[in-house]
Amino acid sequence: MVTEDEAMRRAIALAGRGLGTTSPNPVVGCLLLGPDGEVVGEGFHAYAGGPHAEIVALAQAGERARGGTCVVTLEPCNHTGRTGPCSEALIQAGLRRVVIAVDDPNPVASGGAATLRAAGLQVETGVRRAEAELGNIAWLTAVRRTRPFVTWKFAATLDGRSAAADGTSQWVSSAESRFDVHELRSTVDAIVAGVGTVIADDPQLTVRDLRDGSLAIKQPLRVVVDSHGRTPENARVRDAAAPTWIVTAAEAGTGPDGRVDLTAVLAGLYARGIRNVLLEGGPTLAGAFLAAGLVDRVIGYVAPKLLGAGRPALVDAGIGTIADALELDFTDIAQIGGDLRFTATLRSAKEN
Amino acid sequence: MVTEDEAMRRAIALAGRGLGTTSPNPVVGCLLLGPDGEVVGEGFHAYAGGPHAEIVALAQAGERARGGTCVVTLEPCNHTGRTGPCSEALIQAGLRRVVIAVDDPNPVASGGAATLRAAGLQVETGVRRAEAELGNIAWLTAVRRTRPFVTWKFAATLDGRSAAADGTSQWVSSAESRFDVHELRSTVDAIVAGVGTVIADDPQLTVRDLRDGSLAIKQPLRVVVDSHGRTPENARVRDAAAPTWIVTAAEAGTGPDGRVDLTAVLAGLYARGIRNVLLEGGPTLAGAFLAAGLVDRVIGYVAPKLLGAGRPALVDAGIGTIADALELDFTDIAQIGGDLRFTATLRSAKEN
Repeated sequence: MVTEDEAMRRAIALAGRGLGTTSPNPVVGCLLLGPDGEVVGEGFHAYAGGPHAEIVALAQAGERARGGTCVVTLEPCNHTGRTGPCSEALIQAGLRRVVIAVDDPNPVASGGAATLRAAGLQVETGVRRAEAELGNIAWLTAVRRTRPFVTWKFAATLDGRSAAADGTSQWVSSAESRFDVHELRSTVDAIVAGVGTVIADDPQLTVRDLRDGSLAIKQPLRVVVDSHGRTPENARVRDAAAPTWIVTAAEAGTGPDGRVDLTAVLAGLYARGIRNVLLEGGPTLAGAFLAAGLVDRVIGYVAPKLLGAGRPALVDAGIGTIADALELDFTDIAQIGGDLRFTATLRSAKEN
Repeated sequence: MVTEDEAMRRAIALAGRGLGTTSPNPVVGCLLLGPDGEVVGEGFHAYAGGPHAEIVALAQAGERARGGTCVVTLEPCNHTGRTGPCSEALIQAGLRRVVIAVDDPNPVASGGAATLRAAGLQVETGVRRAEAELGNIAWLTAVRRTRPFVTWKFAATLDGRSAAADGTSQWVSSAESRFDVHELRSTVDAIVAGVGTVIADDPQLTVRDLRDGSLAIKQPLRVVVDSHGRTPENARVRDAAAPTWIVTAAEAGTGPDGRVDLTAVLAGLYARGIRNVLLEGGPTLAGAFLAAGLVDRVIGYVAPKLLGAGRPALVDAGIGTIADALELDFTDIAQIGGDLRFTATLRSAKEN
């Protein structure tokens, strides 16, 4: 027998297993407790088009769910999309009570709690809400803003350099950090880089097992922001390892700075079902995204090294004086190998 | 009754209370345990010329120390300096056993353990050695290198900027970090800054209580590295709040780069009894110290802000390619207010 709070903790962990494969859907985890409080079923939403977490858990529980409690990280959906409404399935299964962490902000799918209440079920919301929101932050933010959630990732030395004076940058960060980046890539729908980085470093921008170089089964879309179509014909981002979108000013239009309109790029990605974007470089593109207010989160891998010269991690963010500095809040600080990894959320973006 | 290990932990904590006032002496803490293992005396070295830790503890213990154990962070001294040798005092007091964390690397004062053993006392060394060394790192390093231990402290944004494009830098870091810097200053013997910083920011470089601006009783020496004697007559570093040494190329000689010879500056400080130096800026002076291999430790206050332009935290460290980056190891990572503070040790310096 587990408490509802403990069950929610487990449901949040289950939900995380779907990160990177559910877009445009959220990640969701669900536990079903029988009338005596024993776990009788569990599930998570594993991929878009696949069964929702509640349905997976109900299939496992069968009749044992009758009279029991559904503990779920997101308000059960109320609409028929690629699958039937979960609210109806819970009612049909004879659940007595539903415990929800986060309300569904999606107007198309919301209303599940009201349907459940109307059918006579007890509904409680807000259990471990902050924790569940954090686990679903990309999708929740994307739905609220109708543009993908953008994480800017960079690696730099203690003095903020991403390359040395001669342009060399392999490797600023440790092997453990580079492994961690591939983990991070595996949780997103698209990886965005500027043509400058493509020309300078020729990255493949794929999710790989760095021990043997093997590609992950699911690859994020590779997006190259390339105003004037300068991506070389033989660039590795053009290989067959993953889909690629090379977006030019001619295709997306131009912003006030005369370069590719980044808001239009994100709108295009949203329309493709992409909710979670990793911006990987370089410093100029990151500056343009930040100047446009289009970054939600920053993850920095800081190597315990000093250079004193070379390419800065960030340029041209449109800030001239200290009072106008972009402000963030650290949400996580960890040591990865010998490096320090911080995660920080943009304060202005949070208040949008 | 406490174990010897526990007593050493306490002795190390006691030793730390002397930081900032004992140079040219080390910090030392001491506990005396009676024959039954009860604490009968404790002490720390509080200021140069004052009684050593062992003598303070013996005075407190009196006859109760007879037949007991002395637990001390540093090998008891064997020479008559401003005070008599502690080894003799421990023998006279009838101690049976002496437990030492760190051997004294100072050839003038060492030999205490041998004297104690010759007198028939049990001597054990190396108890909590690493922890005790860390607490005395500045003095130990200074004695080993015959130059002061140098900590470079800086404040910067996530992208490594110490000021915005227009030169504004107040404030990059949080109020809590600025409090912390005054704590840090209170543990050193001298604060070093370049004339560029003095001209740009006119810092006072004193230890103050930031709530009311009141000056601490003990102030580190202020050192301005000023090749051509450009420190303004009305600069705050010239005020009466603390002693100041404005060191010009004419006085200290010039290094290979034609600027003040930093090795000579540190030699001059060592000769004045200074063992622990805080290098506060700016980026050019820090680069010169790093290029000369004269930095032992870096403490960075990293504010969760982004600028994308402005003064870098570090320039001109003489490094051109990534393979030559200076390598460090993080020894501490903490959150100070909303900022992140890291402490890292130079790897090359450690191996000197």
